[in-house]
Amino acid sequence: MTPTDWLGLLAGTLTTIAFVPQAVKIWVTKSADDVSYLMFGIFSVGIVLWLAYGIALAAMPIIVANVVTLVLSVLVIALKVRYGGRRGKREQEVDLP
Amino acid sequence: MTPTDWLGLLAGTLTTIAFVPQAVKIWVTKSADDVSYLMFGIFSVGIVLWLAYGIALAAMPIIVANVVTLVLSVLVIALKVRYGGRRGKREQEVDLP
Repeated sequence: MTPTDWLGLLAGTLTTIAFVPQAVKIWVTKSADDVSYLMFGIFSVGIVLWLAYGIALAAMPIIVANVVTLVLSVLVIALKVRYGGRRGKREQEVDLP
Repeated sequence: MTPTDWLGLLAGTLTTIAFVPQAVKIWVTKSADDVSYLMFGIFSVGIVLWLAYGIALAAMPIIVANVVTLVLSVLVIALKVRYGGRRGKREQEVDLP
């Protein structure tokens, strides 16, 4: 691994784990109204292309980072499908008999 | 430009413009409660490192994409500073005399 490879791995680690607190936030609050489907949808398609780019360059940091990022980005979309569109927890509290 | 460069530029275009609908959504709804500061904060730091990686590789698509992405990611943070933490528009409606 060259220093540049390490730099790329650190960069990829940060832009990948960044999605974890967003997923956790949706999971905990049961609310995702303010999260944009378009953002995470377009982003996920872009990540698939970055993955292809990394494969074409045989650039390991790009490949590894984008595989994990894709999983997390799709997870955020799945959580918004589950909890978005309505004020989940808040609404449930209001609706309790 | 090689075909791989074009692939990278397309990938970078998508993962960059993805942030636009999120920024627009916050701007229009005046609400960003569900958007995670941690996500966009960690992501922005990671993008700075990707930028350094792109410069080290002299990989033009990585450099261009990450400069623009950094601007947009910081814009989302700024919009959340402005509108987050409270149910902006909704709360204002409720609070109107």
